Amino acid sequence: MTSFMAEVIGTMLLILLGDGVVANCVLGKTKGNNSGLMVIATGWAIAVAVPAFIFGSFSGAHFNPALTIALAAIGKFPGSQVLPYIIAQFIGAIIGATLVYLMYLPHWDATDDADAKLAVFCTGPAIRNKATNFVSEVIGTFVLVFGILGLGLQKTADGVGTLYVGLLILVIGVSLGGTTGYAINPARDLGPRIAHALLPIPKKRDSDWEYSWIPVLGPIVGGLLAAIIFKGLF
Amino acid sequence: MTSFMAEVIGTMLLILLGDGVVANCVLGKTKGNNSGLMVIATGWAIAVAVPAFIFGSFSGAHFNPALTIALAAIGKFPGSQVLPYIIAQFIGAIIGATLVYLMYLPHWDATDDADAKLAVFCTGPAIRNKATNFVSEVIGTFVLVFGILGLGLQKTADGVGTLYVGLLILVIGVSLGGTTGYAINPARDLGPRIAHALLPIPKKRDSDWEYSWIPVLGPIVGGLLAAIIFKGLF
Amino acid sequence: MTSFMAEVIGTMLLILLGDGVVANCVLGKTKGNNSGLMVIATGWAIAVAVPAFIFGSFSGAHFNPALTIALAAIGKFPGSQVLPYIIAQFIGAIIGATLVYLMYLPHWDATDDADAKLAVFCTGPAIRNKATNFVSEVIGTFVLVFGILGLGLQKTADGVGTLYVGLLILVIGVSLGGTTGYAINPARDLGPRIAHALLPIPKKRDSDWEYSWIPVLGPIVGGLLAAIIFKGLF
Amino acid sequence: MTSFMAEVIGTMLLILLGDGVVANCVLGKTKGNNSGLMVIATGWAIAVAVPAFIFGSFSGAHFNPALTIALAAIGKFPGSQVLPYIIAQFIGAIIGATLVYLMYLPHWDATDDADAKLAVFCTGPAIRNKATNFVSEVIGTFVLVFGILGLGLQKTADGVGTLYVGLLILVIGVSLGGTTGYAINPARDLGPRIAHALLPIPKKRDSDWEYSWIPVLGPIVGGLLAAIIFKGLF
Repeated sequence: MTSFMAEVIGTMLLILLGDGVVANCVLGKTKGNNSGLMVIATGWAIAVAVPAFIFGSFSGAHFNPALTIALAAIGKFPGSQVLPYIIAQFIGAIIGATLVYLMYLPHWDATDDADAKLAVFCTGPAIRNKATNFVSEVIGTFVLVFGILGLGLQKTADGVGTLYVGLLILVIGVSLGGTTGYAINPARDLGPRIAHALLPIPKKRDSDWEYSWIPVLGPIVGGLLAAIIFKGLF
Repeated sequence: MTSFMAEVIGTMLLILLGDGVVANCVLGKTKGNNSGLMVIATGWAIAVAVPAFIFGSFSGAHFNPALTIALAAIGKFPGSQVLPYIIAQFIGAIIGATLVYLMYLPHWDATDDADAKLAVFCTGPAIRNKATNFVSEVIGTFVLVFGILGLGLQKTADGVGTLYVGLLILVIGVSLGGTTGYAINPARDLGPRIAHALLPIPKKRDSDWEYSWIPVLGPIVGGLLAAIIFKGLF
Repeated sequence: MTSFMAEVIGTMLLILLGDGVVANCVLGKTKGNNSGLMVIATGWAIAVAVPAFIFGSFSGAHFNPALTIALAAIGKFPGSQVLPYIIAQFIGAIIGATLVYLMYLPHWDATDDADAKLAVFCTGPAIRNKATNFVSEVIGTFVLVFGILGLGLQKTADGVGTLYVGLLILVIGVSLGGTTGYAINPARDLGPRIAHALLPIPKKRDSDWEYSWIPVLGPIVGGLLAAIIFKGLF
Repeated sequence: MTSFMAEVIGTMLLILLGDGVVANCVLGKTKGNNSGLMVIATGWAIAVAVPAFIFGSFSGAHFNPALTIALAAIGKFPGSQVLPYIIAQFIGAIIGATLVYLMYLPHWDATDDADAKLAVFCTGPAIRNKATNFVSEVIGTFVLVFGILGLGLQKTADGVGTLYVGLLILVIGVSLGGTTGYAINPARDLGPRIAHALLPIPKKRDSDWEYSWIPVLGPIVGGLLAAIIFKGLF
């Protein structure tokens, strides 16, 4: 398997399972309706950890342009591979979001709230404030990339390291997700947002393009800061 | 211990613990009444992981005809063993469901809702729609079988691999279980459904046979698709 | 450290942390008031797993007369040690329950419900029925002892095996705890019940001695059955 | 990286993630508002475990003056390093709390309850009673330090040991956190309390200095008791 294919399929699974848990919690008449943050944060954590473990040996399991760019910036990833990886991540994210649409097909009609339908696909701010929302995504992604780099310093028994990555996603979700919903990944947010715009979802709202650059640029800035500071410290 | 016996006892424990957590959450006057999705999904995840770890070395711990058939289809399991495994899985599932009936004996009378009593044993759709329910079971089982095959590619320290299988079940539960309740296993659904039909449960409803083929055929199709695509990719 | 001391301190920690989580969830004005089954089952699971890992190399970390008796019955534990172990377990349980009393000292006055105060210390049935309550404790402890013996068959990386024991306790809690509150351990139930009777708890009820033999005899029978059947099977 | 820097950054991350989960649960208009104890205790557990694993090889990952003092008292840590470690821990805690302030910037105005704002930073008692609150912090920290020392006795596969430390924090949270909110760490409590006093939080209350010595002295006493008793026992 090529690294390109690994990034496509891994990101597809990440979004299928991650957007899937949101769908289960916010769409109408689902079995998990209104299940709360513990379910959502656990879902996203495993949505990262399981594909990361499966595809780690094939592509490094980035699934996230902010991580790919950050690693390239400090020489831990070849610059020539950045664009192909990002393309793969977006392809995977859009396919994954489409699978969530199919998986929950009868539930779109059963949902009145158009904001909830959008929330399945992409993040939105709890309090809309471009500056503070941007800072939130910077801090969240800083912790993600700094954490991944830091965890990589330590030796672990086979398979244990990726469990810590899952825990890292979980804690970012519960601790730093309260403001913007922790996109911390441009492909995770913009890919499904594009799918939301394209898919024939009944009674959907606009895809909130005005906000869409924050969960793209915020994570890239946060990831770069983390990588540069990490390199300076260790 | 023979692989046949391992599949019987492992599937029995899986259903005792899996259907048990549903009983605790939906039957009347239980201590866990209405405990929510996190409890149910965690219960099922461990209901798979612990028996899988105990019996993995004896039978491969399939506990699931969809997995057995999928593995056989791509030459990873001897075809001659498929039928005995499936028989063992159904025997185990029916015994396990009967143990749940015994475990919660006084609670059947304390439950008014006949749908809840059926839900202890087998899955039902959140929105009844044969086509989309079938697709949901296909996608859910695809992720299960693809995930198990993918996890099997990676080396893990002893005991760690099965933890990932538990996480996989957990994430399928919270992310892909919102539509049909993630049967993703013909024995898990049809076995206890047969038990529901046979057991002297007070004021029970019919066993919803009309729906019963979806959580049997859907998982088989999803598992086969996963195995074939997996073989093509790796 | 002697095995006797290890059983005392380990069981003490088990009860301090296990009864502690119940206190946090059911006593008045606590921070965790009414936190639900996920919190309680998680608390008990770790209350077993952490002391089990610390003291495993010193005493085998039984902390449970039903396990000690079951292991002795199939020749996996010296019969001469059974009584000292059980004495140690009861001493530890009574001290642990007393520490919970001290830890939550101002909360006893802040709690109106005398049943809740008793529930901190020991289990009681959701539906009082001697025969079915007994069967519930037999089945719950059967799964506990069979699971521990089964998990012991598999090789694990250092430290991983006890994680499975924690998962086993967690799943018994959520899946099989709905009827009697899963005592599955005579010392865990009778020890704190004695503490409840002796401690100067304000406005306490009687210690429900009428029920007290069920979470003692049920676990012993369930553990013995599990050990004997396990020995026959493997 | 120096051990000083490791303690600063590790404690900073601990507080950013730990106080962050409280902010998400108690501040107004957050996505995790009112998510409950499971979320808070899980957040704090991982807030310890992930930085502990990253920085363990650089400083031992104390992040806690009570642990540093306890280890020094029994000769497991050089006395000359105690003061620098404590200084580093407080610097990290204050920076971490400041990052939480920034992360949740628009939510301070959206919160009416000044007690909730203080609770983001530091602990307070469920029932205010100096003697029993002190005892609670002593017992909680006793379990923390005794547990860490005990877990350190056992060999684990690389990376598994710190998972147990996370579980230990989790169980202390759910089982022993019901009375005072389990500070169990002077830097975790007093550092952010100082930040609360200094930061321009809108409509904040006083920083409850009257209570502030309990989560400092209680943990130190509890940690010392644990270390001394541990040394006597093993």
